[in-house]
Amino acid sequence: MKPIKVGLLGLGTVGTGVVRIVEGHQEDLQRQVGSPIRIEKILVQNPTKARNIAVDAGKLTDDPWDIIRDPEIDVIIEVMGGIEPTKGFILEALSRGKHIVTANKDLMALHGTEILAKAVEHRCDVLYEASVAGGIPIIRTLAEGFSSDRITKIMGIVNGTTNYILTKMSQEGAAYEDVLKEAQELGYAEADPTSDVEGLDAARKMTILGSLGFGVNVELSDVSVKGITGITKEDILYGKKLGYEVKLLGIAERQDDHISISVQPTMVKTSHPISSVNGVFNAVYVYGEAVGETMFYGPGAGELPTATSIVADLVAVVKNLRLGVNGRKVLAPYKEKKLKTDEQISAKNFILLHVEDKAGVLAQITQVFAEHEVSLESVLQHPNANNPKAEIIIITHDANQASMKKVLKHFETMDVIQTIQSVYRVEG
Amino acid sequence: MKPIKVGLLGLGTVGTGVVRIVEGHQEDLQRQVGSPIRIEKILVQNPTKARNIAVDAGKLTDDPWDIIRDPEIDVIIEVMGGIEPTKGFILEALSRGKHIVTANKDLMALHGTEILAKAVEHRCDVLYEASVAGGIPIIRTLAEGFSSDRITKIMGIVNGTTNYILTKMSQEGAAYEDVLKEAQELGYAEADPTSDVEGLDAARKMTILGSLGFGVNVELSDVSVKGITGITKEDILYGKKLGYEVKLLGIAERQDDHISISVQPTMVKTSHPISSVNGVFNAVYVYGEAVGETMFYGPGAGELPTATSIVADLVAVVKNLRLGVNGRKVLAPYKEKKLKTDEQISAKNFILLHVEDKAGVLAQITQVFAEHEVSLESVLQHPNANNPKAEIIIITHDANQASMKKVLKHFETMDVIQTIQSVYRVEG
Repeated sequence: MKPIKVGLLGLGTVGTGVVRIVEGHQEDLQRQVGSPIRIEKILVQNPTKARNIAVDAGKLTDDPWDIIRDPEIDVIIEVMGGIEPTKGFILEALSRGKHIVTANKDLMALHGTEILAKAVEHRCDVLYEASVAGGIPIIRTLAEGFSSDRITKIMGIVNGTTNYILTKMSQEGAAYEDVLKEAQELGYAEADPTSDVEGLDAARKMTILGSLGFGVNVELSDVSVKGITGITKEDILYGKKLGYEVKLLGIAERQDDHISISVQPTMVKTSHPISSVNGVFNAVYVYGEAVGETMFYGPGAGELPTATSIVADLVAVVKNLRLGVNGRKVLAPYKEKKLKTDEQISAKNFILLHVEDKAGVLAQITQVFAEHEVSLESVLQHPNANNPKAEIIIITHDANQASMKKVLKHFETMDVIQTIQSVYRVEG
Repeated sequence: MKPIKVGLLGLGTVGTGVVRIVEGHQEDLQRQVGSPIRIEKILVQNPTKARNIAVDAGKLTDDPWDIIRDPEIDVIIEVMGGIEPTKGFILEALSRGKHIVTANKDLMALHGTEILAKAVEHRCDVLYEASVAGGIPIIRTLAEGFSSDRITKIMGIVNGTTNYILTKMSQEGAAYEDVLKEAQELGYAEADPTSDVEGLDAARKMTILGSLGFGVNVELSDVSVKGITGITKEDILYGKKLGYEVKLLGIAERQDDHISISVQPTMVKTSHPISSVNGVFNAVYVYGEAVGETMFYGPGAGELPTATSIVADLVAVVKNLRLGVNGRKVLAPYKEKKLKTDEQISAKNFILLHVEDKAGVLAQITQVFAEHEVSLESVLQHPNANNPKAEIIIITHDANQASMKKVLKHFETMDVIQTIQSVYRVEG
């Protein structure tokens, strides 16, 4: 049987994992797809550099066009990352009828719609399981497992670095800066951690999940984003006391035809399954009208987990090749996008205030909530021995975001409130 | 576009859910598959009976052959259950080129290999996502999501009734009999609960998962099965004290080419994600050589969750129909089955003994473990105020099952041991 020829763009950590799996599992793969799968050419920056993996030097090239223009190459696996020149390579490869497997969340989040349209035009597959939540097959779960259902909520821990930091802060009572430093030393966080800790990486992944889950062209600018840099030891401690863990959640919601997508630190009730997802693990919680609550848990990154998803996509492409049906199951967004307004976004809130420790303060504060029609689930006043100010923790019932903004604006004008220390969404 | 015509065998809880989803989500389904999907005929025992759902009386029939022999029917959804006459209906339908979607775990566990072979012969699809873990898309996850990996362990909470009972026993310190009675009153357990509480239902599901995960024809008789009827309040209490929850786990393991499959009550460390799966929820934990640890969580039963899986399978069949590729992705077992011997099955064990409360007993007991080369992780001696006997709890290191059987046999001959109260596998 004629072998399927694959071009690999990039031989970093994940690219190396792909080579290992394709070579190591060749017999099993061949039995599934009916033909050998061969990685024929690999794009690298420096073909003479020493590497962690033995690769035939004749396969290495530093010229991308040597791969993209090779008529023998059937499938291109893109693990080089970045937006340009990667996007140009992929579009050109598609126009030449090559199928694409990519792990590139940035590219799919920003240009997924354009790339999928090009794929349909040329009857090519573009699969991107590895772009979200590494080893968890969440893309095919949304596309196929829940094809019959209407998904109304997707909540994801989709960034391992921030989940590692929050887990450490929770388990050890450590401060953000200290844990970040440790994570950087262990290689779990980048030297410049901005993209992770500010929630931007998670936002890109939620763009992809939201588009797929709701059939709508979600753009990165539709996602409201808040990172974890402001989370204090106190937040986590008070959360714990009330039965919550702080998690950086991507939350995509739909009500009727209106959607909202956000990334934000969230107080998650410890009875909710996503609250116990710890360390660098990822998890995606999906709520469907018919199926109800489900959750998918696994490694969010790493050489082999991510490569597992890439090679599973490769298997799907090759099966389609053998059946002659590539590019026929592309799920492009088909619904009109209607974003929720602040009035339509509703959630419980956790609010920690530092206030003057004197009579009548609590009455003034609760009066503000009443004025803006936000009702309260619980109020906890906490004298602080080291401090002349008191701490008040309030958990609201479901309140719309517009009202909450009014409450917080009102608080800023009140002399008795010294600081609005923290405001978190509450889930579970 | 010509509608796809579906015959439905059975209109009980799940069948009703299927009708609701196919009708309620018709527009979304049509957009995905490109043609209307119509439930054309429905097999019922009594066409004139009053029902929870409005169905055109003209669609109802009490003659299965009216559906199976109808040349207009493209797909048959089987939710009538049972082995015969169901198996005959399905084989006949396949020989007439009809595709099958089934929720029938009993049939797939006992005759899956025969049915899949018939499907390949006639180029038909047989999909059975709903047969295991209701709304969790675990079948397609094993077949496609992890197609590139080598799965070495599958652990499942795949029976909601027993998980409900164990959760209640754990949370309320209640006795098995009392919780079972309550579960029966709530409809979570059958009047005759044998199939659930003796682990037989879970064993059938593990047969299906093991076959698919390992590419081997696992038969029901290959599964060693122990149910939950012997679990006491004390077991759960002592487990908790040591950081374990008792769960009825299906465990399928592979080492090199040898496999073992069992269903048994297991002490699961509370740090393991499957330990916190509570109530009627199901979860399947999958370990792959490359991907590492993953877990899939969701409702294990129920009208709409199960129907979601069935209709997702229906969507897959119809997409294949439109592409003309049905029956081309059937994953029949292809590896030779080699079962592990007792010497090859290795696990930690939790043992609770009632012993005479006198000097030297512990030394005699630990000596027995040493003789059979079972090393111990921890030993806890617990005087019992209400009783002249003492309780000893032992947790072993990994020990092979043959040695453990020898230890227990030896214990039976010892006068100082009054009862071998409990022996559980330990995970996590």
